[in-house]
Amino acid sequence: MKHFITFNFARRCALLIWLLATSSAFAQSDPLPSWNDGPAKQAIVAFVKATTDQTSPNFVPPAARVATFDQDGTLWVEKPMYSQVMYCLDRVPAVVKAKPELANVEPFKTVMSGDREAMAKLTKEDLFKIVAATLTGISVDQFHTEATAWLEKAKDPRWKQPYTQLTYLPMQEVLKFLRTNGYKTYIVTGGGQDFVRVYAEQTYGIPPEQVVGTAGGVKYGYGSDGKPFLTKEPRLLLNDDNAGKVEGIHLMIGRRPYAAFGNSTGDREMLEYTKAGDGARLAMLVLHDDAQREYAYGPASGLPESKVGTFPQSLYDEAQNKGWIVISMKNDWKRIFAFEP
Amino acid sequence: MKHFITFNFARRCALLIWLLATSSAFAQSDPLPSWNDGPAKQAIVAFVKATTDQTSPNFVPPAARVATFDQDGTLWVEKPMYSQVMYCLDRVPAVVKAKPELANVEPFKTVMSGDREAMAKLTKEDLFKIVAATLTGISVDQFHTEATAWLEKAKDPRWKQPYTQLTYLPMQEVLKFLRTNGYKTYIVTGGGQDFVRVYAEQTYGIPPEQVVGTAGGVKYGYGSDGKPFLTKEPRLLLNDDNAGKVEGIHLMIGRRPYAAFGNSTGDREMLEYTKAGDGARLAMLVLHDDAQREYAYGPASGLPESKVGTFPQSLYDEAQNKGWIVISMKNDWKRIFAFEP
Repeated sequence: MKHFITFNFARRCALLIWLLATSSAFAQSDPLPSWNDGPAKQAIVAFVKATTDQTSPNFVPPAARVATFDQDGTLWVEKPMYSQVMYCLDRVPAVVKAKPELANVEPFKTVMSGDREAMAKLTKEDLFKIVAATLTGISVDQFHTEATAWLEKAKDPRWKQPYTQLTYLPMQEVLKFLRTNGYKTYIVTGGGQDFVRVYAEQTYGIPPEQVVGTAGGVKYGYGSDGKPFLTKEPRLLLNDDNAGKVEGIHLMIGRRPYAAFGNSTGDREMLEYTKAGDGARLAMLVLHDDAQREYAYGPASGLPESKVGTFPQSLYDEAQNKGWIVISMKNDWKRIFAFEP
Repeated sequence: MKHFITFNFARRCALLIWLLATSSAFAQSDPLPSWNDGPAKQAIVAFVKATTDQTSPNFVPPAARVATFDQDGTLWVEKPMYSQVMYCLDRVPAVVKAKPELANVEPFKTVMSGDREAMAKLTKEDLFKIVAATLTGISVDQFHTEATAWLEKAKDPRWKQPYTQLTYLPMQEVLKFLRTNGYKTYIVTGGGQDFVRVYAEQTYGIPPEQVVGTAGGVKYGYGSDGKPFLTKEPRLLLNDDNAGKVEGIHLMIGRRPYAAFGNSTGDREMLEYTKAGDGARLAMLVLHDDAQREYAYGPASGLPESKVGTFPQSLYDEAQNKGWIVISMKNDWKRIFAFEP
């Protein structure tokens, strides 16, 4: 009898361990439920299988599993304007109050006028001036507090949702699917690194150290209490866009990604660099071709031209030639937002 | 009988799970065997307990557990000269061969002469010129290959060991002890980020994305095969020393460390910034006071003055005043190197 119990015990323990090990795999038999079955979904699943199956010739050791994601237009809505620009515009009155001499200086004058048409015509240089004036000259902690407060109350003009609710459910599933399979997921954004870090952990499960973005310098100094603090300076350290994204990846990660996701010309070099590595690599571009459920802009495939998130025909053709996979929002995504039924 | 088996089974499973959970803790009842029992060792153990015990008022959630380590002089030997400088000096002949016009230009002329006394007198500006000439203008991949090859064959002049063997065993134990307790360990070095990344994973178990160092820009371009590659440029992005270490931490980690380890004035701001945070914070400085087993230099506590790794009396006094703990190599470390008996 004693032997029987021992044997039975060992068998039951083995069963228990097996159940523990496999239950999570069974529970999520389809890791991408918001995706229609098509080439995009199949490519993601095949890539994960090829790089995580120990018997695969393209197996990637867990430490090297890096996947990078552009944010605006790839993980969340970027229309009618990048949310960070909305934040900066909203901060202009406070900046002008602190420095009244700016009230009659462009582009601050235009922003203060509230004239939406004039504001839509602001150039990139104008926006840079606004960004520099609204995001710098304050302490890192103060910036964090103010950005957090704004994100809690600000709403997107179309869905009347907080910006952090406007993430694409199918992409959230990709982030989780990759992480479940040992990938470290990074945001690599042209947006401000400090701004995205404020919400990335709560919104995407991506910690601050895995957010690579456009970054300015900070200055170390002391408060009146003698405590050290950092002040944000208008000195550009890293312009994390176009080839700058690859520079940012080298600086902050030091490894070539195995998978990269983008949606515009600003992501071209990141995808090219990712695909140029050995073995199985995944490069994907989100095409906004769903005016009804989100937006439609390109101008690839005859979609309307856009100032924000440009996806020209040349990028579309390059994707076709180089094996980068274009995700059609309209055809590949069953559901776009979590707040929708 | 059946009930007995079931009850017994449950009890045994609980026992098994308890054993699995606690066995690693029992196996290493002393996580710091190369440390003598003293205030330094006690401070490390107390800090880990205070920040990882769920019932502690200073408990830190795992995601926020960040510990930063200076490298030269803190994790490994920095005398008679930083190993990266030795690498650069060794590379000068190859650089001069490629650019013969440098042979008669200082400081390259002095290095080519092989005159050790003259080389010891090279200024910081001279060394910067050598670093810029030897570490830039080549691709990131070529640099990686060359640095790897050098590290495999180069030997330290005193112990005749590869540089990567000259790490301090007590500090390796601290790295492991912190990681076992959920801490992410980072190197934050004044040395070159790309150089340290070549060996940090194998030497310290620290992956490239957790190495923050002095960093230059890279340029994205294409080879004759059309493949993209990165070239190292002589353009300084981050001078990761003194206050620059805090800037580097903000840029690359985005969180304030809970523990920081250094050994010289270059680490002052990192320790100050770490200690200025809330809750339990640990700041430690390695004092090289063991001429017999390693080196003795300061000039704190009457030790001989040093050009490399300065630890003046003012830093020693500041440590005493601010609760930073000074590690005496002589008194706190039972054993210094793993290769020693």
